[in-house]
Amino acid sequence: MDKKFMQKAISLAKKAAANGDVPVGAVVVLNGKIIATGYNKREKNSLATAHAEVLAINAACKKLNTWHLDDCELYVTLEPCPMCAGAIINSRIKTVIFGAFDSKAGSCSNDSVVNLLSYGYNHTPEVYAGIMENDCATLLRDFFKDKR
Amino acid sequence: MDKKFMQKAISLAKKAAANGDVPVGAVVVLNGKIIATGYNKREKNSLATAHAEVLAINAACKKLNTWHLDDCELYVTLEPCPMCAGAIINSRIKTVIFGAFDSKAGSCSNDSVVNLLSYGYNHTPEVYAGIMENDCATLLRDFFKDKR
Repeated sequence: MDKKFMQKAISLAKKAAANGDVPVGAVVVLNGKIIATGYNKREKNSLATAHAEVLAINAACKKLNTWHLDDCELYVTLEPCPMCAGAIINSRIKTVIFGAFDSKAGSCSNDSVVNLLSYGYNHTPEVYAGIMENDCATLLRDFFKDKR
Repeated sequence: MDKKFMQKAISLAKKAAANGDVPVGAVVVLNGKIIATGYNKREKNSLATAHAEVLAINAACKKLNTWHLDDCELYVTLEPCPMCAGAIINSRIKTVIFGAFDSKAGSCSNDSVVNLLSYGYNHTPEVYAGIMENDCATLLRDFFKDKR
């Protein structure tokens, strides 16, 4: 786990905000190197599934030419929603590192809606929660403050 | 709810099987017409997120040019996994009709792993479970029998 990768995810989240999308960014890391990135494009692409994590996972699968991301780590600025938690399970990602908690849709910790990553599906990643939480949450708070 | 749409989803599932993918097919219906289709392409596309439902939802968003599929129905031959249940929630699909139950990854009924579609997220679709269950389950059984 290396904070420089979360820093990169934060810089990607800022690109989402510049498009009017909720600022969430993600990177996939393999052997200490970023192999894929994504940031939320739901509004920009008018696409319900275009969350940062799904875009980063898709890019990683394309890069490695496999749906198995067994040795990969995913860094994401916000706790994944059920769709993204499911995409993490389906791609067999080894480790998930997330920043801010999401009490409304978060699905990767016992403090949010449900912890799908330890629910007994056929894959259980390791999870580090709340890494650089304050920086990640501030991004979101500032975005919604500007919206009001 | 109209079984002819499930019949179409079954015919799509057979295309997946022909590619060596687990046979799951899905259609999105709006105002009594199919507006988008999808079938599992995980192996074919080497993509962890290429489940039938996600592909059908993506195609529907593109067709309607919005991530809001509020008035749409999704027909799918197999109970959605957590990723696809999350994609259904995120796209605000009104009604989900599924065929076979999935005890290992199914996330849309109380009889499977967890019922995410009534878990208290910000959208709760109506669900019809087990529609043409036998036809849908037979597809899967035959596929796995051939694999062994």
